[in-house]
Amino acid sequence: MQHNEDTQTIVPKNNFSEWYSEILKRAEILDVRYPIKGVYVWFPYGYKLRNLVYQILRSLLDEEHEEVQFPMLIPEDELLKEKEHIKGFEDEVFWVTRGGSTELEIPFALRPTSETAMYPVFKVWIRSHADLPLRVYQIVNTFRYETKHTRPLIRLREITSFKEAHTAHTTRADAEEQVKKAVALYKNFFDRLGVPYLITRRPQWDKFPGAAYSIAFDTIMPDGRTLQIGTIHLLGESFARTFDIKFEDKDGSLQYVNQTCYGISERCVASVIGIHGDDHGLVLPPTVAPTQVVIVPIVFSRKDATGDDGSRSVEAACAAVRANLEKAGIRVVVDNSDERPGAKYYHWEMRGVPLRIELGPRDLKNESCILVRRDTSAKRQVPLNAVVQEVQRTLEDIQVSIREAAHEQLRARMYNTNEDAAERYARAQQGVVSVFLCENEECGQKLEEQLGVSVLGEPLVDAETAENETSKGPCVICAQQGKRVYVARAY
Amino acid sequence: MQHNEDTQTIVPKNNFSEWYSEILKRAEILDVRYPIKGVYVWFPYGYKLRNLVYQILRSLLDEEHEEVQFPMLIPEDELLKEKEHIKGFEDEVFWVTRGGSTELEIPFALRPTSETAMYPVFKVWIRSHADLPLRVYQIVNTFRYETKHTRPLIRLREITSFKEAHTAHTTRADAEEQVKKAVALYKNFFDRLGVPYLITRRPQWDKFPGAAYSIAFDTIMPDGRTLQIGTIHLLGESFARTFDIKFEDKDGSLQYVNQTCYGISERCVASVIGIHGDDHGLVLPPTVAPTQVVIVPIVFSRKDATGDDGSRSVEAACAAVRANLEKAGIRVVVDNSDERPGAKYYHWEMRGVPLRIELGPRDLKNESCILVRRDTSAKRQVPLNAVVQEVQRTLEDIQVSIREAAHEQLRARMYNTNEDAAERYARAQQGVVSVFLCENEECGQKLEEQLGVSVLGEPLVDAETAENETSKGPCVICAQQGKRVYVARAY
Repeated sequence: MQHNEDTQTIVPKNNFSEWYSEILKRAEILDVRYPIKGVYVWFPYGYKLRNLVYQILRSLLDEEHEEVQFPMLIPEDELLKEKEHIKGFEDEVFWVTRGGSTELEIPFALRPTSETAMYPVFKVWIRSHADLPLRVYQIVNTFRYETKHTRPLIRLREITSFKEAHTAHTTRADAEEQVKKAVALYKNFFDRLGVPYLITRRPQWDKFPGAAYSIAFDTIMPDGRTLQIGTIHLLGESFARTFDIKFEDKDGSLQYVNQTCYGISERCVASVIGIHGDDHGLVLPPTVAPTQVVIVPIVFSRKDATGDDGSRSVEAACAAVRANLEKAGIRVVVDNSDERPGAKYYHWEMRGVPLRIELGPRDLKNESCILVRRDTSAKRQVPLNAVVQEVQRTLEDIQVSIREAAHEQLRARMYNTNEDAAERYARAQQGVVSVFLCENEECGQKLEEQLGVSVLGEPLVDAETAENETSKGPCVICAQQGKRVYVARAY
Repeated sequence: MQHNEDTQTIVPKNNFSEWYSEILKRAEILDVRYPIKGVYVWFPYGYKLRNLVYQILRSLLDEEHEEVQFPMLIPEDELLKEKEHIKGFEDEVFWVTRGGSTELEIPFALRPTSETAMYPVFKVWIRSHADLPLRVYQIVNTFRYETKHTRPLIRLREITSFKEAHTAHTTRADAEEQVKKAVALYKNFFDRLGVPYLITRRPQWDKFPGAAYSIAFDTIMPDGRTLQIGTIHLLGESFARTFDIKFEDKDGSLQYVNQTCYGISERCVASVIGIHGDDHGLVLPPTVAPTQVVIVPIVFSRKDATGDDGSRSVEAACAAVRANLEKAGIRVVVDNSDERPGAKYYHWEMRGVPLRIELGPRDLKNESCILVRRDTSAKRQVPLNAVVQEVQRTLEDIQVSIREAAHEQLRARMYNTNEDAAERYARAQQGVVSVFLCENEECGQKLEEQLGVSVLGEPLVDAETAENETSKGPCVICAQQGKRVYVARAY
């Protein structure tokens, strides 16, 4: 265990953009020193966090989906089949044109997403109604030729961890039911990360290319900008018609399948980092913390550590606590490095470890130790013989507090400013503004230009049912009948 | 659970090439109907098998390595830095030359392997001896522009599951020690898959481009051809010099690191399928079987199933057995589909499920059930109250038997035919031939041409220590002093 890091104070979090870059480096999440714009290297610690986050996502998906893996290369002619779809991606696709020194006859696209890789195969997989519903997912790397400013985990040329689920159903009603299930699944996922979200139906002029409609999860980052962290699309029959995916129904007739797809990328990791972190570094929810508890022996001499003088050994006591916590399934390390305790605290705080246990000779005499929470810095003495239960309970408390604090932050950045144009502009720089807007794309574009924002869409009040029940009012641009929508500066 | 497959007999395994293709399809491992040569789709069942195999590999690596992930794209100038290395790959690299409609200034290679992606970053990660040893691995997709005949899991344009480990050390001795550890780790891995192997040091003229030497694991497939299933390379300082990877030693001097790398691809899955399977389909070792036990209720009427007449229900008994097996950590399913028992047997045999439990009304009266082994077809009655222990014990037996049978097959295909040229040729069509060969590349090439084989290299007798202690004799080509080498037709 090496703690040879720079112990300078970090940039405060209210300078969010710099704080974010610094945290990714100092908590060893991603290394940005790779010689291609917009692609990054996962450090071991970052990758552990990534794996724990995706383990939760996988376990939720595995209840009703099967994991598959489709090829990364897509032949040009397949990618170009769905006209509306490709229009949405054509400027962003990387093309493989050469193998060795040979020009390829047909260029291959690096998948920007996998509809056009999967659906020609769905055509041969699906024969009869008995093959439906089909629900599969994969976690793969996808690629976008981003020309805008790139940012680790957020705007990438290689998305390393794109979870994309694709489903096919006999009826539109079943597909819509699947959309609701996907919304519920994503809620469950982000709840476990303590990440709050807004669920909206994207404007029709901003839906996924080829979809009937798109639903999105956005969270609000500390700088007031929203981050889209999940999307769910009802595809209906559009891709089925393009790729000729039919099934034989019970009555023997051939019908097109109805489809959905929904995706989550490593932006979910960005949201955990951005939302929960503080001026001392990461603050990780226990559910995904690679190390949930660090034990720091408070020893100032060899004697303290090993109990050479016949007194009990701090080293042995720490090892015993670790063994008991491990037995209870808690991810725990003892920091026996040669650093001073202060340097150890700094190291593990930066990495967001939810709970620290301090244990020295004096504690040992009292048969107790000190628990220190990462999120609140609160300290508490607990008896050694109750340490497992106390740690478990405290980790649960931390999980809840982190989530509640995050929800409070989000609520504080929601503004209802339908009335005043100046206030609307000011608020739109700080968070999410709720206004009335008609469905006309021109009004949407105008509003976006006026405020320098994106229209997120109509909020789904009851996200469980994916139905929109928000109120109506006059469009802030044209004064025609409009619906309530959220707008914000978006990543 | 749908069993609507074609129940025709499969091609016998002695027609290995056709058998292999058919099994991949009918056991639902890989779908070959993707419109690009040499890239395939993992079916859900195949991907479950793949995940279980890689879970073993990961758990072994996690003891001393950390998982990372490096970018898939490599800038042309980095890839070309290591002259010897690139010579080995230049004809096989896919190139991205376009983003959207823009020609890229520098083409990006799809990684064929990741030395040139990782080592420029190792240069900034490694500062001092305290940073060493560095041991990382990643499991990623890699790409080769194969112009030869491609084959699922074996010769691919997209290798979907390349596990590559890369290590850096202060001294050559430490690096050589790591090579030995890697050999031990790979032995452990393939032992758990029941896959037998030959370990050889590849001829110097056939080592990994840029390495000091290469060690390889080969197994023998049922058609007598060898399949390289793992490689381990001592890189020494060659890449460190190219990429300028130095560390400050204890005395303050700057030294080049010494490196190793070692890889395993989804060929490990191909070996499990090819070696253990039989004329009825897959035979999976319990360690990696997605379903370890299938319970088939033997019921011919509704009454049998549910015990409507007051007798005990077969359905309930099957559910109870399943619950008990699950509690013991066994991967088990009950096949309650509407198929006849025979069709169910066929279905699960094809998928290689190691153990079947048959349970009908008569068994229930006897408080017993029937266990049927997939590998030997042996049937045995066991009391219901001992079913968990009996299943556990039988699964362990199967694991051992499968492995022993595979080792026997391998031994039967090893030939020592130093004396007779005609026999040498004949044997080289059936398996691995051991002959004496000098170190001259020309002699090696001549022998390869004469026999239509590849020289695998010198066997490592004591693989634990990675030292070669085989005997010496006159080269079969030039009669100069030679060493014992293995030759075979290779995939």
